[in-house]
Amino acid sequence: MTPTTIYFDFLCPYAWRGLELADVLRRDHAQTFELRHFSLVQGNHPENAASRHVPIWWLTDQASDGGSAAQSGSLRAFLADQAAAKQGEEARWAFALALFRAVHQGKAELNEATLQAAAQTAGLDLARFDTDRQDDQSRADLRADLAAAAELGVFGTPTFVLPQGHAAYFRFANLVPPQQALDTYQLYVSVLESDARIETVKRAKRA
Amino acid sequence: MTPTTIYFDFLCPYAWRGLELADVLRRDHAQTFELRHFSLVQGNHPENAASRHVPIWWLTDQASDGGSAAQSGSLRAFLADQAAAKQGEEARWAFALALFRAVHQGKAELNEATLQAAAQTAGLDLARFDTDRQDDQSRADLRADLAAAAELGVFGTPTFVLPQGHAAYFRFANLVPPQQALDTYQLYVSVLESDARIETVKRAKRA
Repeated sequence: MTPTTIYFDFLCPYAWRGLELADVLRRDHAQTFELRHFSLVQGNHPENAASRHVPIWWLTDQASDGGSAAQSGSLRAFLADQAAAKQGEEARWAFALALFRAVHQGKAELNEATLQAAAQTAGLDLARFDTDRQDDQSRADLRADLAAAAELGVFGTPTFVLPQGHAAYFRFANLVPPQQALDTYQLYVSVLESDARIETVKRAKRA
Repeated sequence: MTPTTIYFDFLCPYAWRGLELADVLRRDHAQTFELRHFSLVQGNHPENAASRHVPIWWLTDQASDGGSAAQSGSLRAFLADQAAAKQGEEARWAFALALFRAVHQGKAELNEATLQAAAQTAGLDLARFDTDRQDDQSRADLRADLAAAAELGVFGTPTFVLPQGHAAYFRFANLVPPQQALDTYQLYVSVLESDARIETVKRAKRA
């Protein structure tokens, strides 16, 4: 079964809600998802304004402690998540969700202490985690995710790429209760599968 | 019954498809719609970049033959449509649809000949139409539409404003066959009414 790919960034509260939704679908409804990274700092970087598809400035070319708090925080979180992925799919979901919850529910900063706490909550092998996130392979894996996102034209998170190829940003403001997860997701899928070829539904914001 | 308001611009092929969809819903499914104008030329004008809600540059402050072809064409089309509206709801729909079809199906230019042909197709009282579209009242009515759109934060067309207050851009690439109109529209309404408070579904575009 081809999985649905989710591009996400730990900085983004909408990505957090998207991942919570997907977690219910995979646990309760036998759906499969592949997690990949898209960087909002990279996507919105002025040097990348000319083309979404051909980034000039790459997050993976930066030092882990360089730039703004959002830049270094998201880079370190991505590398940690790539390292968590090497401990298996369940460990990776547990880590990603623990980190998202710490930041967007617990309002923790995306810093070293928060990464370590999430690794602990997820039950990771902490020694291996620390080794792997320093490893060049984590940076190479992140680079591959960012390159795939650029190719696809991802511009925000979460973006879901369905098995049939539909790919769209899916932004919602409320956490979805587990019993509504399937209906909510099916609504999104129905929009993408409609014969009308729906490209955008986007709310206007009042003054 | 509170109508659903549709903001549209004759320049926009998505607005054309939105109006065709709404026309099926009002004729076959007893739904009511109010047509209003949003100007893409005004919305995208560099002088209005600071705020969607407080336009500095107004289309209604321009001469009918000034600016780019898109600017003068859309202004004249709006004034003509405001004049058509004074001949009753059916006449107005007939005019708006005739003009949209001429431009987006027939690939006619949005010029004087096309406006006159649409008025004829719609069976308007042509003398009254010509008087009314020169009248200051048409410009005042257009200004009121553009001001209401700015207040709402409209940024593209078509934007539908549902009776309960949900307002969103609804862009789809394929004309919807009449027998699928209700399902397609209901899908859009369901997205806006979802408890998840869906704010955006937007496709990514591949390189």
